[in-house]
Amino acid sequence: MKKRHAIHVLRSENFSDWYHAVIAGADLAERSDVRGCMIIKPYGYAIWEKVQGIINSKLKTYGVQNCYFPLFVPIDVFAKEAEHVSGFAKEVAVVTHSRIEQDADGNFIPTSPLEHALAIRPTSEMIIGASFAKWINSYRDLPLKVNQWCNVVRWEMRPRMFLRTMEFLWQEGHTAHATAKEAIEMANGMHNAYIDIVKSSLLLTCFAGKKPEHEKFPGAVDTYTVECMMQDGRALQMCTSHYLGKNFAKAMNIKFQSAEEKLEYVYTTSFGATTRLIGSIIMAHGDDDGLNLPTCVAPYHVVILPIIRGEEKSSVLEYCEKLQKMLDGIDVLIDSADYSVADKKWNYIRKGVPIICEIGLMEVKQNTVCYTLRQPEIVKQFCSMHEFVSSISDLLNKHDATLREKHKQVTEQNTMHMTSLADVQEYFAHNTGFVVVRWCGCTGLLSELEKISVTVRCQTCDNCDMHECACIACGKKAENLYILAKAY
Amino acid sequence: MKKRHAIHVLRSENFSDWYHAVIAGADLAERSDVRGCMIIKPYGYAIWEKVQGIINSKLKTYGVQNCYFPLFVPIDVFAKEAEHVSGFAKEVAVVTHSRIEQDADGNFIPTSPLEHALAIRPTSEMIIGASFAKWINSYRDLPLKVNQWCNVVRWEMRPRMFLRTMEFLWQEGHTAHATAKEAIEMANGMHNAYIDIVKSSLLLTCFAGKKPEHEKFPGAVDTYTVECMMQDGRALQMCTSHYLGKNFAKAMNIKFQSAEEKLEYVYTTSFGATTRLIGSIIMAHGDDDGLNLPTCVAPYHVVILPIIRGEEKSSVLEYCEKLQKMLDGIDVLIDSADYSVADKKWNYIRKGVPIICEIGLMEVKQNTVCYTLRQPEIVKQFCSMHEFVSSISDLLNKHDATLREKHKQVTEQNTMHMTSLADVQEYFAHNTGFVVVRWCGCTGLLSELEKISVTVRCQTCDNCDMHECACIACGKKAENLYILAKAY
Repeated sequence: MKKRHAIHVLRSENFSDWYHAVIAGADLAERSDVRGCMIIKPYGYAIWEKVQGIINSKLKTYGVQNCYFPLFVPIDVFAKEAEHVSGFAKEVAVVTHSRIEQDADGNFIPTSPLEHALAIRPTSEMIIGASFAKWINSYRDLPLKVNQWCNVVRWEMRPRMFLRTMEFLWQEGHTAHATAKEAIEMANGMHNAYIDIVKSSLLLTCFAGKKPEHEKFPGAVDTYTVECMMQDGRALQMCTSHYLGKNFAKAMNIKFQSAEEKLEYVYTTSFGATTRLIGSIIMAHGDDDGLNLPTCVAPYHVVILPIIRGEEKSSVLEYCEKLQKMLDGIDVLIDSADYSVADKKWNYIRKGVPIICEIGLMEVKQNTVCYTLRQPEIVKQFCSMHEFVSSISDLLNKHDATLREKHKQVTEQNTMHMTSLADVQEYFAHNTGFVVVRWCGCTGLLSELEKISVTVRCQTCDNCDMHECACIACGKKAENLYILAKAY
Repeated sequence: MKKRHAIHVLRSENFSDWYHAVIAGADLAERSDVRGCMIIKPYGYAIWEKVQGIINSKLKTYGVQNCYFPLFVPIDVFAKEAEHVSGFAKEVAVVTHSRIEQDADGNFIPTSPLEHALAIRPTSEMIIGASFAKWINSYRDLPLKVNQWCNVVRWEMRPRMFLRTMEFLWQEGHTAHATAKEAIEMANGMHNAYIDIVKSSLLLTCFAGKKPEHEKFPGAVDTYTVECMMQDGRALQMCTSHYLGKNFAKAMNIKFQSAEEKLEYVYTTSFGATTRLIGSIIMAHGDDDGLNLPTCVAPYHVVILPIIRGEEKSSVLEYCEKLQKMLDGIDVLIDSADYSVADKKWNYIRKGVPIICEIGLMEVKQNTVCYTLRQPEIVKQFCSMHEFVSSISDLLNKHDATLREKHKQVTEQNTMHMTSLADVQEYFAHNTGFVVVRWCGCTGLLSELEKISVTVRCQTCDNCDMHECACIACGKKAENLYILAKAY
């Protein structure tokens, strides 16, 4: 008999426990003994490598080149941009010693104090800015576009795997330009690239736009964000792109000689995406049977489970290998490990593998394939090997289309437009979801939202049925629409 | 007129200055403002990405899976293996605070001291061992094979770009096995994989074997190393593989239940290679015109420089693009930037690009290609486009074969066998190079070598003309041959 659900906690019962159960069930990651840090296990890391590939190819089309800058930032360099340092000062890990020695009790303690303490990068605007100041002399050196894949550290008080960990992996892009127009285009370009990744690769419905003033990256002129709804109705910030104006150029003295031979400050941008994207896949697509992976981030598109009983072994394995070879361009794993096929199947269901094949002597004899599509429904299906191979793209597309559609529905069903603050308060007292409102930017709204742990996620242009133009908080004319939500 | 040399310092004049001039000339990397750290620039990082690809594919054949473990190691965990901690205690960066604040003078200083200081990983045996202890229960969980690509920090007193930097990038593999035999096979397997990479991909002649006792990795039973000769006759340790026996299993309590239901310690290994490999490419293959890149680590195999004068522009560019398309499977860059073709050509020579094409109106009209092979000699050659395209593999092979042969000759010409300690002392007083000797392992040799800054690099089986069996230091019977050299 089919097990009811492969995850022991239901989403509807306890979303947070379900989230951690999915991570454990798919063997993606686990907590480290070091407070706030996580260990990304092979399957989780393989998903990250797929995400890296997708982002790298986007970066390439924008002419952004990978490189690597130091982990350490001297504190005085870090402090050069006032808003920036005040935004990060409360969560910076600081290295102060360069040696450990045993004390009288035999315990190892830090010794050899450093003359100048070093911050561990929470982000690299300052350290990359210092290089930009050296590298950029003339307008011919512009635009300059670099990116690094690295670890950063932010001292998180409430860590949660993939979403907020003390150390996390990310890519951070940094560019410098001769004109504000070009820099804004770059920040917008990467913003659009991220939107495309979120929609086309992660198969998620999203809202994308500017962050309000108080939610901007410390030191930015404008921050663009992509926000998705998780299945508990909370918002997750997927990635951000920042137009930094001349702020960092002035702090780090990044100047260039223009074609007119004038010495001018450059305009900079930065943009990043983290392992948090894996958290979004779990919380947006996961179900009570575990993870669901969009095809293009799935380490394996198809897992083949040979059903082997004694003397049939070689013919079944041969048939599996033939099937693997015929699935050209598809990532296939044949798992013939010595565990029960049923256990292995549920294991791969929890791992969100799009297609699982079970191949026994019957399939070999009849030249057929028994397969289970993870979406829309976990049901065994049968067809000829020829049919299976020729329809593999359609099957994967069906899996992907279902994921895309389900997330679209969850998002649409839980997004509403409101024109009264009382309605907003009433709504969030009993619900989570996205609420679209008009807002003039006044602080009146913010103080009310703070009381109910709701934040302004971003501006949105989704204004289909919002004909009124009054700010929901103060009633003044408000041109822009914003998304309100409880957020991760 | 052809410039004499593209690098302003000759190898023969000042090898160290030449090394840094090649790095600057090829725009690979530069020193950071943070003491001992380096910035890997886009071209240097692109080479590293090629190296990563080569190593990743080897790791895959050995069933090693990528994952990611935390940057931080609690000091008490780090100290659990006595030899290990004493080997690294003098060069560990320690995080002691989690916040910075402005003092009365306005300077930012570390605040919020941590209850337990955290070491930044100089290597991850201990932190990965802690996970292995949790993950391994039964013999069915073995072998367990993981790898991570990450940054590590070792407080270097004499940093040198790519060779010894405070922070460096590497891969570190860690495996656990049920038997000593299997673990030794794994360490040997990766050792052989590294030898193959050094020979087949980096095109270097090498010596490979066990490190002597006193040069082993702290905590290892055996360390296997690959040693190459740089063009100044010094040795560079390319990568290492360690058989760790039960040492780390006992320190971290990594046990498994055997098939016979006995609780036993696992046997572990670790192995790693760093960005130092880029240093070896520079110092082993570079010449007075700059870098020389083996084809399989070259970001571009062919660079095409269009020679554009006014109205010819579109036909020349079209021809270049046609050539690029025809070079299927070859990494081609067309550089039409607004600099002189001569400057650009010398720039790519300094970058070690195997083939540089110069395409002007004459080539278009005659359907030919003007090209310069970086090796064996920088001389312009001409042939039909068809001939160029059909011989591209041969041209790249010629470049590679020349590099391989040149390094083989340098190594052979500077490697000699000696049977008297006086000869060794005399030799190293005036020369650098590799000296092969018989040694029983006695400390007598070590104290003499220390006086002349020479170290025992590794055991070797290259015993062609060493019929005597007496230890070079004490005269006792000595079965093994060792390489002596001054080293980086």
